[in-house]
Amino acid sequence: MATKVKLLGFWSSPPVFRVVWALKLKGVEFENIEEDIFNKSTRLLELNLVHKKVPVLVHDGKVIVDSFVILEYIDVTWQHDPLLPQDPYERAMARFWAKFAYEKLLESAYKAMWSKGEEKQKAMKEAIESLEKIEELRGKNFIGGNSIGYLDLAIGWISYWLPVWEEADGSMRILDSQKFPAIAEWSTKFLKHPVIKENLPPRDKTLAYFHKRAEEIYADFCASEN
Amino acid sequence: MATKVKLLGFWSSPPVFRVVWALKLKGVEFENIEEDIFNKSTRLLELNLVHKKVPVLVHDGKVIVDSFVILEYIDVTWQHDPLLPQDPYERAMARFWAKFAYEKLLESAYKAMWSKGEEKQKAMKEAIESLEKIEELRGKNFIGGNSIGYLDLAIGWISYWLPVWEEADGSMRILDSQKFPAIAEWSTKFLKHPVIKENLPPRDKTLAYFHKRAEEIYADFCASEN
Repeated sequence: MATKVKLLGFWSSPPVFRVVWALKLKGVEFENIEEDIFNKSTRLLELNLVHKKVPVLVHDGKVIVDSFVILEYIDVTWQHDPLLPQDPYERAMARFWAKFAYEKLLESAYKAMWSKGEEKQKAMKEAIESLEKIEELRGKNFIGGNSIGYLDLAIGWISYWLPVWEEADGSMRILDSQKFPAIAEWSTKFLKHPVIKENLPPRDKTLAYFHKRAEEIYADFCASEN
Repeated sequence: MATKVKLLGFWSSPPVFRVVWALKLKGVEFENIEEDIFNKSTRLLELNLVHKKVPVLVHDGKVIVDSFVILEYIDVTWQHDPLLPQDPYERAMARFWAKFAYEKLLESAYKAMWSKGEEKQKAMKEAIESLEKIEELRGKNFIGGNSIGYLDLAIGWISYWLPVWEEADGSMRILDSQKFPAIAEWSTKFLKHPVIKENLPPRDKTLAYFHKRAEEIYADFCASEN
């Protein structure tokens, strides 16, 4: 019996694409269900009772949430073309850097996009310091190994969303290819991979979306400060 | 050749005990190196270049940091008596709830200990709401299965440190055994397990330590607000 896989997602969400890429790399067929994250469906709220966020993977009725937990689930459920390295130490490193990029870089880079003044400068500085650590991982074809793996998918947003956020904001400067040649080289390779290239949100629409989001988040932030 | 395992830790740290318990459950011999986290050694700073925190596991010269990444490393390196469930979906659930308890419960419970006034009430409310979700996991002997596993080790601090934090503070009330009977039953069983029972910090010393820490963190917080 063929298994049934559904993915509840959102068209411009980096964590959702992380899962889309993993499923496509493994050749797993799935039904893509677009959610409106600003007007969440009963389906999403019922399936993800805890965080109420996309992505949500539904596999033969089993519900898995959190993009990193989903990646691990996919890798052990469809074991061909493994995403995580087989060596225990290499696995640990992939998990560590994925978590680092999520906890340290993503948050500060996103804040650098929507904030202003001193706050923006501070967030940009933190993001650049985190990128410096990731730059030091250079030396392999793809950061996680010679083919696209768990770590590449985890930090894949750096190659596409980060330049979009810089452009959406206008004054945010984080990704300097002179300063981060290894990341620049990895980004180019990553975006050329057929599975990645064919599964990205349209650039213009993404740019317009984050330009608007940055203004909305900043307005909310100012309102909450008063 | 026997492998060489060292653990850089700190006597009252829940994430360090998570790793100690895992190594002891697996029967892995290791050298315990006590660090002074208020006056970090060159050794710690050089080994954990990124976060500069304990625990740090050194296995045959390989350095692994972050207690959850270390647990996964231990489980795949010494495969007998597995910590993570074998079923992919159960594995995903163990990882999800471990992350949830770390991101949602630990932070609010710790803040409830050192904060005061409205901030304390808010942190207590958040911690209680997170515990309610964990309470719903009841139904198994140990939360992660019938023997101590990954999830039990991840949330083990609830059984020992959380009551200590409540006592250290005096007015913090989170763990109500009437309201959380499954967690209370699990805590009792968890603390009776020989490996756990024999590997806990002395209660009086831990109580005094966190009483002092709560005051110090609150003083720092007030200073940073002015």
